[in-house]
Amino acid sequence: MDRKVLKNHEKITFKIRDLEIGGDRPIIIAGPCSVESREQIIETAKALKEIGVDMLRGGVFKPRTSPYAFQGLGLEGLKYLKEASEITGLPIITECMEEKYLEVVSKYADVIQIGSRNMYNYPLLKAVSKMDKPVMLKRGISATIKEWVMSAEYLASEGKKNIILCERGVRGVDTYTRNLLDLTAVPIMQHETGLPVFVDPSHGIGIRELMLPMSKAAIACGANGLMLEVHINPDEALCDGEQSLTIEQYKELYDAITN
Amino acid sequence: MDRKVLKNHEKITFKIRDLEIGGDRPIIIAGPCSVESREQIIETAKALKEIGVDMLRGGVFKPRTSPYAFQGLGLEGLKYLKEASEITGLPIITECMEEKYLEVVSKYADVIQIGSRNMYNYPLLKAVSKMDKPVMLKRGISATIKEWVMSAEYLASEGKKNIILCERGVRGVDTYTRNLLDLTAVPIMQHETGLPVFVDPSHGIGIRELMLPMSKAAIACGANGLMLEVHINPDEALCDGEQSLTIEQYKELYDAITN
Amino acid sequence: MDRKVLKNHEKITFKIRDLEIGGDRPIIIAGPCSVESREQIIETAKALKEIGVDMLRGGVFKPRTSPYAFQGLGLEGLKYLKEASEITGLPIITECMEEKYLEVVSKYADVIQIGSRNMYNYPLLKAVSKMDKPVMLKRGISATIKEWVMSAEYLASEGKKNIILCERGVRGVDTYTRNLLDLTAVPIMQHETGLPVFVDPSHGIGIRELMLPMSKAAIACGANGLMLEVHINPDEALCDGEQSLTIEQYKELYDAITN
Amino acid sequence: MDRKVLKNHEKITFKIRDLEIGGDRPIIIAGPCSVESREQIIETAKALKEIGVDMLRGGVFKPRTSPYAFQGLGLEGLKYLKEASEITGLPIITECMEEKYLEVVSKYADVIQIGSRNMYNYPLLKAVSKMDKPVMLKRGISATIKEWVMSAEYLASEGKKNIILCERGVRGVDTYTRNLLDLTAVPIMQHETGLPVFVDPSHGIGIRELMLPMSKAAIACGANGLMLEVHINPDEALCDGEQSLTIEQYKELYDAITN
Repeated sequence: MDRKVLKNHEKITFKIRDLEIGGDRPIIIAGPCSVESREQIIETAKALKEIGVDMLRGGVFKPRTSPYAFQGLGLEGLKYLKEASEITGLPIITECMEEKYLEVVSKYADVIQIGSRNMYNYPLLKAVSKMDKPVMLKRGISATIKEWVMSAEYLASEGKKNIILCERGVRGVDTYTRNLLDLTAVPIMQHETGLPVFVDPSHGIGIRELMLPMSKAAIACGANGLMLEVHINPDEALCDGEQSLTIEQYKELYDAITN
Repeated sequence: MDRKVLKNHEKITFKIRDLEIGGDRPIIIAGPCSVESREQIIETAKALKEIGVDMLRGGVFKPRTSPYAFQGLGLEGLKYLKEASEITGLPIITECMEEKYLEVVSKYADVIQIGSRNMYNYPLLKAVSKMDKPVMLKRGISATIKEWVMSAEYLASEGKKNIILCERGVRGVDTYTRNLLDLTAVPIMQHETGLPVFVDPSHGIGIRELMLPMSKAAIACGANGLMLEVHINPDEALCDGEQSLTIEQYKELYDAITN
Repeated sequence: MDRKVLKNHEKITFKIRDLEIGGDRPIIIAGPCSVESREQIIETAKALKEIGVDMLRGGVFKPRTSPYAFQGLGLEGLKYLKEASEITGLPIITECMEEKYLEVVSKYADVIQIGSRNMYNYPLLKAVSKMDKPVMLKRGISATIKEWVMSAEYLASEGKKNIILCERGVRGVDTYTRNLLDLTAVPIMQHETGLPVFVDPSHGIGIRELMLPMSKAAIACGANGLMLEVHINPDEALCDGEQSLTIEQYKELYDAITN
Repeated sequence: MDRKVLKNHEKITFKIRDLEIGGDRPIIIAGPCSVESREQIIETAKALKEIGVDMLRGGVFKPRTSPYAFQGLGLEGLKYLKEASEITGLPIITECMEEKYLEVVSKYADVIQIGSRNMYNYPLLKAVSKMDKPVMLKRGISATIKEWVMSAEYLASEGKKNIILCERGVRGVDTYTRNLLDLTAVPIMQHETGLPVFVDPSHGIGIRELMLPMSKAAIACGANGLMLEVHINPDEALCDGEQSLTIEQYKELYDAITN
């Protein structure tokens, strides 16, 4: 693979506020798929903070298969997310799908997320490469290792190295799970790029009962962090409720992972 | 599938200049993967025009897996493409990957192409839905029928109906071919959306010797058009040379398809 | 690929009774997924014969995902199939899954079918390679071109060349169709082995309305024959009714293909 | 899924000699892909025994893609394997591909292995269901969860419950790894069948450097055992050398897993 910046075996670590990314301790990111209201995200953030969490997630720009599905609260949601961050002291991560919103997302969020559907959006990757803020690059829906490495190289080609990779499953032939979680990609991508690799079992599998065993497996094979969907009321979630953990399930998982 | 505009069984046809898209006669689009120079695109256009062709293709913004690969000539290439169009009288199609270039691409090109890597780029689809010009929506790299239909619905949601769908293969488990050409998608997408469906065997297969039999098959199952890569000197092409037809091979294919 | 018998470009043709396999005219095989009763197979055979057909198919040993699903009539079904053959003069093809039944299947049938689930059953392939009768080797459920070629080479390794290959779709990521019909495999397998290649759109797609366009496409890209499921009463079929053509649909397809 | 014997949530455990299968301690099976000679298998068994291992594996009937590749030592190899078992006291597992060899394999081996290529070989599964000996059922090359469950049900349909399932990767779109190891299948299959589920990372991944992290992950998500390829001289292995651990690498992995 034709790379100039990212190299095999040169382990990269960096800080987000006082969190060490790529260090010895796995980082736990949790929160709802979407910011649905001011109350929902603040209540969620407080509950997660009390149990234990490193970073808060919440989508405000949502890439949805249907143009008629809930598309996210947009800038309004970004402000709610920021308020939740200020109340709890948690850093926040949220997805940006468009170059024109990169500035504002950078202003509010601690980490810019590039979602699975945009892993091949090279103009967006080039624009993100110029931002100061750290970026999380999720794996494309059926991306090969090489394609994922090269998309990371797009981000790194201007010198940016505060990049987190996130495995979230690839499309498989079986509809039993939402996607096929490819944990082998964790040590492979660490080897190929030196970057920290997180795992999102929520999108990777889509069945909340499997979050606990597969989070343990992710940590066991060396994942540098987890990205989990948690909802205060999954049955009423506007998006992906069936894969979201309840607060109680999150507590059980958090305790199991951190002890 | 949750659709408001595109419906089953309502066949949609429209005109691009004097070409009827979705009509009885299959439309042949041909040209190089990339516009590489003024001479190359003009020479190609003249050669194709002499043999017979309906529309000229040529990429000027190229989505490449590597940030260090040839990224296209950009606006300069667009002007060369336009000049080739004016010399030969052929309408032109070219890919646009960014909202910020939609205006200029619309000004020069007869059809805006949304490439495979951008089928899930919903902000781009929404922006294209507001343009007057016809659009070709290529199938995503491993997109399901439903996802492709819903991306077309994004384009149509503001009333736009001059949409061409283009099958270009999905990712398969076998590396013998570049992708797995899914011709069954032709009648399925026609049934699900009423829109004209073209086939791009060049990207779908990646082996020039297979263009002739598979183009015949595409027409036989009802494809409304073909999109073919042709290069005046495939061995020196800056992109995808191995799948490009020579001018002579194109002539053989064109004669076989149109007689 | 490490082959000793099958070679590129040496086209192989052979006779089954007076049918030329691999010749200029595509061969049409039709019949029910399973032989369900003496009456059903005889009635089907007569109806097909009247419309036009080259060979009668009907399963008597059925590989079913569930051990509790109908497993076929076995030897009794083989006799009914033979009776239908004698009444109509049609040659017959049926699947054999076990070495111990090869002798009896060879005695009754004109062609021994090796089903998709047995493409990797190398002991069975070796046993079939020693039989005089022609054999049809269906492609494995997600077999690569190389694997399929090498399984054909198992059959040919003792000198057997009266082999028909049959494309029947590979497993894809989309559940819209039963499988992903890979028509590009037709010219590829003809090129790689020289053997005649048939197409089974019934299993390849699983939706009867798509049999007509995709049969046309198969013939257009050079398929040497078709294998179609037809049932006198698809709604009451014990197996795969939703993909079986009615007698009327078969007539429409047969007329379209042969005119 | 239409099951009569295997049910959700009823955990099944059983003994192989004094090993508890499905119990608290994960079982480690190791050995070469193929028995290549008397010396090789005895030397390997002694080395593994000294380090620590629960069961010895070694193929004597080998399903190979090419008819001209090494097909295994057959009954001679079975005797060498038995001798290695008697010298070390280790139970042995080996693959059987044909009904006609079931009796002899049952006589020598402690566990009969049904390989990936035979998961859909229903006549073989029915024959195995009648044997007293425990059986390991490997997942088919691109088998869905449902298909795998139903093949286990074929084995169980006559009351047999001493069945081990073994995940070994499914075919993926990326050739970076040999297969795509699907660890999520471990808790899913345990849930769906109650049976113990082992993991074979050697075939699942094909790169020996990844055996350690992915073995840890397998254990972490609840695998009841591991199946590992180990060769005293991988560079001279007749089969799959590149994925075999050296004795030293095995020791490192064994120590890491068991401490």
